[in-house]
Amino acid sequence: MADNPSFVLQSIEKVVYEQRPVPEPGPNDVVVEVKKTGICGSDVHYLVEGRIGDFIVEKPMVLGHESAGIISKVGSDVKHLKVGDRVAMEPGATCKRCDLCKAGRYELCADIEFAATPPYDGTLARYYRLPSDLAYRLPDNLTLEDGAMMEPLSVGVHSVSNLGGLRTGQSVAVFGCGPVGLLCMAVAKALGASRVIAVDIVPQRLEFAKGYAATETYLPPKPLEGESKIDYSRRNAEQMKKELNIQDRGERAVDLVIDASGAEVSIQTAFYIVGAGGTFVQVGMGAPNITINIALLSVKEVTYKGSFRYGPGDYALAISLAASGKVELKPLVSHRYAFNEAITAFEATRAGKSKDGKGVIKAIISGPE
Amino acid sequence: MADNPSFVLQSIEKVVYEQRPVPEPGPNDVVVEVKKTGICGSDVHYLVEGRIGDFIVEKPMVLGHESAGIISKVGSDVKHLKVGDRVAMEPGATCKRCDLCKAGRYELCADIEFAATPPYDGTLARYYRLPSDLAYRLPDNLTLEDGAMMEPLSVGVHSVSNLGGLRTGQSVAVFGCGPVGLLCMAVAKALGASRVIAVDIVPQRLEFAKGYAATETYLPPKPLEGESKIDYSRRNAEQMKKELNIQDRGERAVDLVIDASGAEVSIQTAFYIVGAGGTFVQVGMGAPNITINIALLSVKEVTYKGSFRYGPGDYALAISLAASGKVELKPLVSHRYAFNEAITAFEATRAGKSKDGKGVIKAIISGPE
Amino acid sequence: MADNPSFVLQSIEKVVYEQRPVPEPGPNDVVVEVKKTGICGSDVHYLVEGRIGDFIVEKPMVLGHESAGIISKVGSDVKHLKVGDRVAMEPGATCKRCDLCKAGRYELCADIEFAATPPYDGTLARYYRLPSDLAYRLPDNLTLEDGAMMEPLSVGVHSVSNLGGLRTGQSVAVFGCGPVGLLCMAVAKALGASRVIAVDIVPQRLEFAKGYAATETYLPPKPLEGESKIDYSRRNAEQMKKELNIQDRGERAVDLVIDASGAEVSIQTAFYIVGAGGTFVQVGMGAPNITINIALLSVKEVTYKGSFRYGPGDYALAISLAASGKVELKPLVSHRYAFNEAITAFEATRAGKSKDGKGVIKAIISGPE
Amino acid sequence: MADNPSFVLQSIEKVVYEQRPVPEPGPNDVVVEVKKTGICGSDVHYLVEGRIGDFIVEKPMVLGHESAGIISKVGSDVKHLKVGDRVAMEPGATCKRCDLCKAGRYELCADIEFAATPPYDGTLARYYRLPSDLAYRLPDNLTLEDGAMMEPLSVGVHSVSNLGGLRTGQSVAVFGCGPVGLLCMAVAKALGASRVIAVDIVPQRLEFAKGYAATETYLPPKPLEGESKIDYSRRNAEQMKKELNIQDRGERAVDLVIDASGAEVSIQTAFYIVGAGGTFVQVGMGAPNITINIALLSVKEVTYKGSFRYGPGDYALAISLAASGKVELKPLVSHRYAFNEAITAFEATRAGKSKDGKGVIKAIISGPE
Repeated sequence: MADNPSFVLQSIEKVVYEQRPVPEPGPNDVVVEVKKTGICGSDVHYLVEGRIGDFIVEKPMVLGHESAGIISKVGSDVKHLKVGDRVAMEPGATCKRCDLCKAGRYELCADIEFAATPPYDGTLARYYRLPSDLAYRLPDNLTLEDGAMMEPLSVGVHSVSNLGGLRTGQSVAVFGCGPVGLLCMAVAKALGASRVIAVDIVPQRLEFAKGYAATETYLPPKPLEGESKIDYSRRNAEQMKKELNIQDRGERAVDLVIDASGAEVSIQTAFYIVGAGGTFVQVGMGAPNITINIALLSVKEVTYKGSFRYGPGDYALAISLAASGKVELKPLVSHRYAFNEAITAFEATRAGKSKDGKGVIKAIISGPE
Repeated sequence: MADNPSFVLQSIEKVVYEQRPVPEPGPNDVVVEVKKTGICGSDVHYLVEGRIGDFIVEKPMVLGHESAGIISKVGSDVKHLKVGDRVAMEPGATCKRCDLCKAGRYELCADIEFAATPPYDGTLARYYRLPSDLAYRLPDNLTLEDGAMMEPLSVGVHSVSNLGGLRTGQSVAVFGCGPVGLLCMAVAKALGASRVIAVDIVPQRLEFAKGYAATETYLPPKPLEGESKIDYSRRNAEQMKKELNIQDRGERAVDLVIDASGAEVSIQTAFYIVGAGGTFVQVGMGAPNITINIALLSVKEVTYKGSFRYGPGDYALAISLAASGKVELKPLVSHRYAFNEAITAFEATRAGKSKDGKGVIKAIISGPE
Repeated sequence: MADNPSFVLQSIEKVVYEQRPVPEPGPNDVVVEVKKTGICGSDVHYLVEGRIGDFIVEKPMVLGHESAGIISKVGSDVKHLKVGDRVAMEPGATCKRCDLCKAGRYELCADIEFAATPPYDGTLARYYRLPSDLAYRLPDNLTLEDGAMMEPLSVGVHSVSNLGGLRTGQSVAVFGCGPVGLLCMAVAKALGASRVIAVDIVPQRLEFAKGYAATETYLPPKPLEGESKIDYSRRNAEQMKKELNIQDRGERAVDLVIDASGAEVSIQTAFYIVGAGGTFVQVGMGAPNITINIALLSVKEVTYKGSFRYGPGDYALAISLAASGKVELKPLVSHRYAFNEAITAFEATRAGKSKDGKGVIKAIISGPE
Repeated sequence: MADNPSFVLQSIEKVVYEQRPVPEPGPNDVVVEVKKTGICGSDVHYLVEGRIGDFIVEKPMVLGHESAGIISKVGSDVKHLKVGDRVAMEPGATCKRCDLCKAGRYELCADIEFAATPPYDGTLARYYRLPSDLAYRLPDNLTLEDGAMMEPLSVGVHSVSNLGGLRTGQSVAVFGCGPVGLLCMAVAKALGASRVIAVDIVPQRLEFAKGYAATETYLPPKPLEGESKIDYSRRNAEQMKKELNIQDRGERAVDLVIDASGAEVSIQTAFYIVGAGGTFVQVGMGAPNITINIALLSVKEVTYKGSFRYGPGDYALAISLAASGKVELKPLVSHRYAFNEAITAFEATRAGKSKDGKGVIKAIISGPE
């Protein structure tokens, strides 16, 4: 049977619909009828650039990796799921046998097969096969759209809770108010952060963050003409510390800083902002070569952690936070598209707004009819 | 009484001997007759530059902070030490009352009074007062010279064991074969590292490292003309990985990288070398503004830690490692000077060799007769 | 001046009011005019038994250690507090110089001087002197009565957050619905526990717990005649697992069990209930010699932690949880007494109810007029 | 083909040789020709009692789980191993899909299929199939007999390093000088423990321990007539603390206590011995119902951990410690038997000595000719 319409990136800027074979589950797999898929910046990046760092699209690849759907087939050894179950789909199948998989760091598995990361096909298709332990049954009070949001929410959980180690009562600053930054704020709030400071250069995004999960916002000044980035960042940090009464130590210190912007000046500024003994987490890959002031990390003994996708327990906590109402997802879904409108969805995400001028936070594409 | 000859930095490049008042101990202090003091690069730095980062010499300051001596007076409440005890002297007196002191991170105390860090006087004097809990009695099989070496050894312990978290059987690479780098290697070996890789651009230093505590050495190639630092570092890392069969994962991965060089290309190279899920520790403050490839830290989820001095337990472990013979100190003491030769000692340390051409690893100055 | 009326335990069952000298602050101390003091089970224990374990009352001792008040004098070196500040008072002054104090475990300091633990006087007096870092300024929205509650709340914070390591989304069971048990539940809820299971043998206490911070309750059955404690506990655990659908692994597992009852059968039952890889925390000292099934701890690799008082950061988090409204304290204050009614307050706490038959959760005694 | 002679426990006290089918590898499996198998106390326990705790032998079961051999077949997807490789065999195949497997705690997997734990067959056969990631290639300088010893050595690694968290310079006491206790001492020494105190009631075993890996030994006194176990243990602990100058805090404190005896009085004594803030690890299952003094765990805030088998990284570290010479294995192999002498080997292990009166530490059975 070949009824598996798929949204395929053929080469830079060229996407088409193709029929692909319907996958059959192995003994421990499930096949999911994909119902909702969010578009991620990385999908757009592959469309426009054909690569992210060393991951290069060299042959046609189905896009999409933020998905939820309904189980249509289960493998012979699968006991905890059945046809008809609504599930969130974790997109990285790992080897389960290497040292990193066994030690609880499966996100670092060298053999991970991650949806829509070359050369592996993504989830923007009618059917997608995945190992049964990566299909998480959705509680009744979560929709399939919520289910698709579990992927970016898990990125936030991984960064804020798992790597950032945020504890109730600590304070957090998040640079960047895109979907991942907003979800990091939501996780911080859900974990009981005492302060959640949102930073962005677009006032409307700060306003949204404030209404969503931030307790405070900060709008950086414009750089001066001829000012170097590092000089700007120092000035920016001084202003931010003054405006928000941020100190290096004590109860006005920032325990955790998350950079979800990838911008050099954000990272530079963050190193001034983070408190002594604090933690900085870089979410996503960011600009590859940036200038940093390592003396700041040394004298404050800052811990810097690179965050890559998500690991053990992150999807489960994401679902728990959403199901318990600690994290709200609906405000983030700004645009919805049918499967055959996928190109329009990508265009809007790429532009940051749809044709009617409405800003895109997260666009969700429904599965094929 | 004023018999307290002291070696004082008056201003850049100007050092003199002065008589200072003999300190009296408070109830929980001891006064130590200083017998041996090692010269640290930071002492030389203050002599030559008058500052390190934001620490600026603004009034005359006694130099020296790597010391050991014999207790000459004890405060009224001191019970565990007595006059005549031979002690290693930890040079940072902290407030003991702030959150960081109480939480086990006293090296980050805002009010630390650190010997020979402006505006606090150092230990190059006949007498020095310090809180009794910072005077560590030396076991019989350690000399006062060993005692002076506890300071840089504690820097190694803090970086490799406390922050680096090295466990027996893990592998380590150390960039920079100066005294701190060598002591980091010694600590790594003492903790049972399976590989201790020394990196330096001076072949003789590598040779010394190999004879001392390294299991392998690596000599970086020279940069090509016009090659950018980051391009050079990538090429350097590729060559290093090939020569030493270093991989990103599995048993040939490097679990911990220590940078004790502060050089931009070392840090850049280190980020390529460190294994997935591994740790990088920056010892000392390094060049303030360097260019780094943060994508390397992200995709491997590297933990980067700034290391500043030493904290709870570091001096005790340093003494234990030396007393048990797990770390050897004598090979590192290359030069010895009388108190009235202190200027010569600084000149040799600054030049990296004494007038007879012998390379300086560590120069020790005895106390006044 | 001698205007310092104090409530003194002279010997078993014998308490009197005495005038004591008004304390003078040392340079880093404050003197607090004590305004509110909660009665703790340990105060009653000293009154009735004259000892708790190896702590024996051998000379007259002022009772009380759960206090808040208003600063009346500050030492010469105190900068962060001033006369008139409302503060919660942490009752254990530690040496600040031993390894444990410096390593962030000051609750284990051998030289701790803890209020109303022999031979140290407590806080049931007009004035009490304490080190300034143990006086925590109360936010405006907390009352002095709330301030007195910071002590038992810190016990909960220490057990649930600091030692128990509870993370948002995990599940907890608490054995014992006295003040400490209830506050452990409140902390668990504040930290975002998904389940907070209260266990007690008194139905009214369970009812209160349910209205306060528990999500579920469990009432153990009565023991059968002739049934051994360990047999009873196994049966009890089986019933509890069935009633509440508790499993050893997966999302119905209990991640953390707190015993705040000290009862042998609670601890025995808890070992059956706690999930694989889970943590059990014993709050307070409990019955000294109890029978346990260690095979349960082995096959599930349970971590058992003894919890003693509180340590770094616990008071600060307690205040933060109360000030932010995450923990409610008012429902727990069941009885209030004037200073000259202290004996009545002790009688009610001892009886578990006041003369009007109202059950005591926490009785608070005001300071002298 | 049926050439797979196997040593089968049919029922209590009844063992026979049977021909079993030769296993075929699945795609990710290997089949190993078993060459050396150590006898463990648990094998003897099943022989004599037919059960260990809730694990009950209900149908014939091949014994043995401490094995090494030579790979005779590899599955189609196995790349890192080939026929002829010499491997140590980790005996527990886990599901790799449950939360515990994925979180790095695979030893707690509910579906673990562990060799010679009912109902799963063990390794005392010519051929044994296992997942390829549980076959660890032996370095050239380790023999197949060493390979068989990796199993009990991994128990030591798990208890001392992984759960016990022993760091270089810390001190350890080990109760019980059987094979597991001795290997715990060896691991402690290899990790750089400053003190390794061996405790046993048999002087010859202490003598062996001293010559092997202990730095100090302690021989408990005999119980007095009528003395309760808990009274005896307190007296025993007091004597031990005095003889060895063990204190509760400071440099004479014991950081880690391992109980490898399972005896009630050992565990009781251990709770007195362990230092404030220290860790106690129970290796193996021990007597199920014992009396403990929990006040000791509370006032010292001891962490008690149950240790069950071994987890991620333990086999790898065991091999590294043996291959580097940090742990010696040959002194422990006291007896060697041919495959057809397996019954004699079990008899000797059961008796604790062979017919010539020589004490058994570890008996190794060779594979079938």
